[in-house]
Amino acid sequence: MPLLSGIKTDEQELSELRQITAGGGFIGLAQINSGAGDLKGNALKIAKCIKYAESVNLDMAVFSEMALTGGPIYDTIKRHPFLADESLKWLKELARLTDKTAALVGFAEPADDKNGNRYYNSVAILKNGNIERIVRKSASLQEVYNINGTKYCITIGDNFIQNSVSELKKAGAEVIINCSSSPAKLKKEELKQQLLSFTANSQNLPIVYVNQVGATDNISFDGASRAVAKDGRVIAKAKSFDEDFIIVNPLKEIGDSESLSEPDKQADNRKEFTLDYEPELEFTYKTIVQGIKDYFSKCGLKRAVLGLSGGLDSSVCAVLLADALGKENVFGISMPSKLTSKESKSDAQMLASNLGINFAELSIKPVVDTTTDCLNGLFKAAEEKWQDRYENSFTPDNIQARARAVYLWGMSNEFPSCIPIATSDKSEAYMGYATINGDMSGGFAPIADVTKTKLFALARWMNLHRASKNAIPKSVILKKPGAELAINPKTGKTLNAEDALMPYEFLDEIIWRIENKNESYKDLINAKFIYEEEYGISRQQKVEWLNKFYDRMSKALYKWSIMPPSVIINKHSINRAEYVQPITSCKINYKGHSMSVIRQILSQAGQQEAN
Amino acid sequence: MPLLSGIKTDEQELSELRQITAGGGFIGLAQINSGAGDLKGNALKIAKCIKYAESVNLDMAVFSEMALTGGPIYDTIKRHPFLADESLKWLKELARLTDKTAALVGFAEPADDKNGNRYYNSVAILKNGNIERIVRKSASLQEVYNINGTKYCITIGDNFIQNSVSELKKAGAEVIINCSSSPAKLKKEELKQQLLSFTANSQNLPIVYVNQVGATDNISFDGASRAVAKDGRVIAKAKSFDEDFIIVNPLKEIGDSESLSEPDKQADNRKEFTLDYEPELEFTYKTIVQGIKDYFSKCGLKRAVLGLSGGLDSSVCAVLLADALGKENVFGISMPSKLTSKESKSDAQMLASNLGINFAELSIKPVVDTTTDCLNGLFKAAEEKWQDRYENSFTPDNIQARARAVYLWGMSNEFPSCIPIATSDKSEAYMGYATINGDMSGGFAPIADVTKTKLFALARWMNLHRASKNAIPKSVILKKPGAELAINPKTGKTLNAEDALMPYEFLDEIIWRIENKNESYKDLINAKFIYEEEYGISRQQKVEWLNKFYDRMSKALYKWSIMPPSVIINKHSINRAEYVQPITSCKINYKGHSMSVIRQILSQAGQQEAN
Repeated sequence: MPLLSGIKTDEQELSELRQITAGGGFIGLAQINSGAGDLKGNALKIAKCIKYAESVNLDMAVFSEMALTGGPIYDTIKRHPFLADESLKWLKELARLTDKTAALVGFAEPADDKNGNRYYNSVAILKNGNIERIVRKSASLQEVYNINGTKYCITIGDNFIQNSVSELKKAGAEVIINCSSSPAKLKKEELKQQLLSFTANSQNLPIVYVNQVGATDNISFDGASRAVAKDGRVIAKAKSFDEDFIIVNPLKEIGDSESLSEPDKQADNRKEFTLDYEPELEFTYKTIVQGIKDYFSKCGLKRAVLGLSGGLDSSVCAVLLADALGKENVFGISMPSKLTSKESKSDAQMLASNLGINFAELSIKPVVDTTTDCLNGLFKAAEEKWQDRYENSFTPDNIQARARAVYLWGMSNEFPSCIPIATSDKSEAYMGYATINGDMSGGFAPIADVTKTKLFALARWMNLHRASKNAIPKSVILKKPGAELAINPKTGKTLNAEDALMPYEFLDEIIWRIENKNESYKDLINAKFIYEEEYGISRQQKVEWLNKFYDRMSKALYKWSIMPPSVIINKHSINRAEYVQPITSCKINYKGHSMSVIRQILSQAGQQEAN
Repeated sequence: MPLLSGIKTDEQELSELRQITAGGGFIGLAQINSGAGDLKGNALKIAKCIKYAESVNLDMAVFSEMALTGGPIYDTIKRHPFLADESLKWLKELARLTDKTAALVGFAEPADDKNGNRYYNSVAILKNGNIERIVRKSASLQEVYNINGTKYCITIGDNFIQNSVSELKKAGAEVIINCSSSPAKLKKEELKQQLLSFTANSQNLPIVYVNQVGATDNISFDGASRAVAKDGRVIAKAKSFDEDFIIVNPLKEIGDSESLSEPDKQADNRKEFTLDYEPELEFTYKTIVQGIKDYFSKCGLKRAVLGLSGGLDSSVCAVLLADALGKENVFGISMPSKLTSKESKSDAQMLASNLGINFAELSIKPVVDTTTDCLNGLFKAAEEKWQDRYENSFTPDNIQARARAVYLWGMSNEFPSCIPIATSDKSEAYMGYATINGDMSGGFAPIADVTKTKLFALARWMNLHRASKNAIPKSVILKKPGAELAINPKTGKTLNAEDALMPYEFLDEIIWRIENKNESYKDLINAKFIYEEEYGISRQQKVEWLNKFYDRMSKALYKWSIMPPSVIINKHSINRAEYVQPITSCKINYKGHSMSVIRQILSQAGQQEAN
C-alpha cells in the first residue's frame, strides 16, 4: 500500500517535524479514501495514520465521518447489520494501536433501537489502547471532550453549526472538530468555506474540518480538509481529490503554509446560464477522473474498452479514461459502418495515437447485414399479426449502435477486469438520443452528467491544460456532433444531432433553467435565451423546440432509469441518486392548461355523466 | 372512459339506491387509479365520481391521498413546481362541480416554504362550488370538520393513529376519515386491517379508509378501501387491484354486504422460510398483472414482445402478459440456437398456442456465427496488447443472449407502442445469472421480484386457477431450469442453472433469510435449511454454496442497478426503489473476521510503518 500523500518518511524531515510538534497541541487531519464496507482496507489506512501520528507526537489524528465503515452505505447495514458489529471489532483493534496520541475515527456503531436504526453514525475517541468515548451524530451537542489537555467540541457531518456550540464554548470548548463526509457537488466549496469561516468567527473558536475524499459510485467527495483560525482564516488545507495528511496547531494557528499554495477550486456561481464554463472545468475534470479511478479500483476493475467514433463524446471519454486508468488500460475501437466518414475513422485513430491508448478497427458491416436480413424475415412474419408497422423506423440506426455494443461487451467478457464505457452525455440523455443496449449501455458512463456545450469547453480545456497538449484533434471539436447512423433526407449527408434535436446551445439552456431555476414551460417561453439573442429565432421556432424538448424528455424517463453508474457533477442531475421521477409520469402536460380549458374539459365530463 | 366499477347506471338500481341514501349520512369511497402527474386524466375521473355522488344524494365522496396529482411523485414537483400550481387550478374547477355533496380530494398543494418544500400533501374539502377548506398532512390533527351535519376527523396517509384523534373525539368527532396511499407490499394487508380495527375500537369511532389503487412504476397499490364500524368490524370493502366506488353509512353501520363476499387476501405470515407459497400466490399474480397493465397504459404502451425459450421464466411472463395486455398484444418469439433442444422449441410453441398469443420462430444462428467471426478477429488483435485473455470465457453464451435481445428490441423499434420484456427472476438477479444487454434487458421486468421456487409454485397455481387451465405445458414445469447457452463438460448436455449455481431451494432460502431476518454468514452457517434437512448435505457443500452466493451477489450489484422497471411484490426486494447498496461495496467481507485475525492484520500494518 503506498503511503498517503503528506506522510513524511525522510528521517531529516521527520526530526524537524518532531521538533515543531514537541510543544504539543498538534492535530493530524487524516484525509483517507475509504471504500464502502471495505473494513479491512479502511482499517489498514487508519492504522497507518495512527502509527504515524503517534510517531510525530501529535495530540490527535482526526478522520472523516464513517472513515472506518466507508460511506455512503445507503441500505447496506439495514440488510446486513453484521457490518456494524464488524466495524466495532475493527475499531477495538485499532484502539489497541493507540497510545498517547488520540484518534477520532468515524464508524457505524451497532444499534438496534426502537426506531429501526441498525447503526449510529458515530465517532470514537481512541486513546491509550482503548475506545475511550463514542460520540453519536445528533442535532445537539452534549459534551466537551478533554483530549491531551485541550477541550474539544466534536461535531459530525454537515449540520455542525449548532446553537449548542456556543453552549459548549461556555463549558470551556477551545477547538471545534468536524468529522465530515460532504459530497463535492458544484457550488458547495464556496458555501463550505463561508460556513466554516462564519462559524469560527462568530464563535471565536478555531475549527478542524476533516472531510472524506474519493468516490462511492456516483457520489464524489473532494477532501480539501482544513483548519480555520478563530478569525475565519484558513491556516492549512489538505489536497482536493487525493488522500492527504496535514498537521496543524489550531490554537497557535500553525499550519503548513505550503498546503495553501494550491488555489481554491473555482466554484460555479452563475445566477444565469452562460456558455463560459471556464470556472468549473478543472473541477469537472478532477471529479470525473476521480470518479472513474475509484469506481474501477473499488470494484476491482482495471481496463476500459470504448468505441471511438471520431466524435466529441467518445474522444472526451478516451482522454478522461487514459488519465484515470493509464493509457495501457484503455482500448479504443473504431467500428465503422457504411455511413462512417473517412474523417471519423482518421480522427479516431489520431486521437488514440495522441493518447497512446490501444486501438483497433473493426467494421460492423457483417453483423449489421446479417442482423438486418434476419430481422426483415421476422418483421414480415410479425406484420401479418400487427399490421401497423412503422414506415420509417429507427431499426437500422439502432442495429448499428447495438452491434457496436455487442463488440464492446464481448471484449469485456474476453479480457479480465475490463468493462465497456457508455459515452452518452447529459444533453442526449434529456432527449433520449441514445440507443438502449447500444451507446447507452456500458459498465460506467463518465460524462452522463455533462451537457454537450460544456463538453466542447472541456475538450478545449483538456487540450490546453493536460501535460500532453492537443490530444483531441481539432477537427473533432470543430465538426457538428452526429451519430452517423442515418442519412438526412434533406441534405443527403449523415444526420447531424442538431438537425434531429435542436441547437445544443438552446437545449443546454433549457436544461439549466429547469434544473437550476425550476422554470416552467411558460417561464421558458418568456425567458430570453442566449441563442435567441445571438441568432434571433422566431417565436414559432422556439415553441417548436420547447415542445420537442418536453415531448422527448417525457419519453426519455425510462432511459434515465437504466443509465449505467456515472459521476454526478452538478448539484442538479438526472442521476437516480439525485433525482427520481416516475417513468409513468409521462402524461404530465408541461404546458399546463388555462382555467377556461380546464373548465371546458370538466364540464364535458359532467355532461357525459348526465347523459 | 369506462365507468368505475361500482357506479350504477341502471335506472332501477339508481332509484333503489336513492331511496336508501335519502336518509342522509352516506359516504362514497371513490377508489380511483390515478396517474402520476396526469392531472387531466385524474380530474376527469374525480369529476365523474363527484357528479355521481351528487346524483345519489351522498353527504360526501372521499378520494385517496394525492388522488388528483397522482403519486408517488418523488422529486418531480421539486423540479417542476408548476405541477402543484396546476393541481390547484384543476382543483378549483372540480370544486365548481360540487353542490350539496362534498368531495374530499387529495392533491399537491403549492408551497414555497423555508424548508424547501414545493408542495404540501393535502386534502381539500370541496362543497357548494368552492374549495371550502384545505387539510394538510401533519403529525397532529388540529380540527373537527362539520360536513353536512356530521363531524369528521380527517387524516392523511399511513400515520393516522394519533393521540390527537382522541382529542378530536372530545371535540365531537363522530367519524374518522383516512385518505391513504399505502403500497400493497406483502404482509401489509393484515397489519392494515389490525390497525384500522384497533383504532376504531379504541376510539369507539367508525373509520372510512380510502386507499389508492393501481401501480406507479414499481410501486403497487391494492385499493381495498373500506369502512370499519366503531367496534372494528369491516362493514364494506372496495375491490382489490381495481377501481371501485362503494357507498356506506358509517354511523348507521350500513354497507354493501355484497362487497364483503370477496375473501381477504391471504397475507404471507411466515416466520420461517417455507416452500409452501400457496397463501401468497393470488396476491403475487394480481400485483404483477396490475403492474404490467398500469405500466403499459400509463406509458401509452400496448404491446409486448418476449423471447419464449420453453423455460419457466419466459413461460410465466407470457401468461402474465397475456392476462394483463390481451393475447393479441403479446408476441412470443422462439429464437433457437444450435444448443436449443427440440423440446424447448415445441414447449415454446405449445405455450403460445395455449395462450393464443402471436408466435414466430427465428434462429439466431446467422447472427451468432457472424458476430463470433468478427469478434474472433477483434480478440486476436486485442490479445496482442492485453495478453491475459480468458481461456474459457462467457463470450459465446453472451453472444447468444445478446443476439436475442437485438431481435426483441428490433421488434420494439419496428412496431408502435411495443416493448420487449426482460424475463429474469429474482434468484438469478441475486446470482448475476443473466446477460447484460441480453435476457436482463427489456422495457419491463415482470418477475424480477419473484424467486425461482416461488415461480414454480406460481406456474402451477396459474395452470390451476386461470379460466383457461394448464396454459403452461407440464414439461416446462417439470424440467430443470437452464439457459441452454453452454454445454456442461461433465455431462455433455446443456448446462443446468443449478449446476452452475446451487439448488434453487437452497438459494431461495438464503435470500429469504437475508432479506427477512437480516441473517449474517455465520447465522446462515448455523441455520438448518430445508434443503439440508431434506437431502442431508455436508457442511463443506453448504460452505461452498454460501461462499458462491456472497461472491456472486457482490459482483451482481451493478446488474441490480440497471434492472428494467419491475413490480415490487415483497416488503424486501433488491429493486432500487426499495434497496440501495453501493456497487463499489463489493469488497465487503461477508464472512467477517475474528478478533485475532483482525489483530494480526493490523499489527502487520503497524510493523510496515515501523520499518
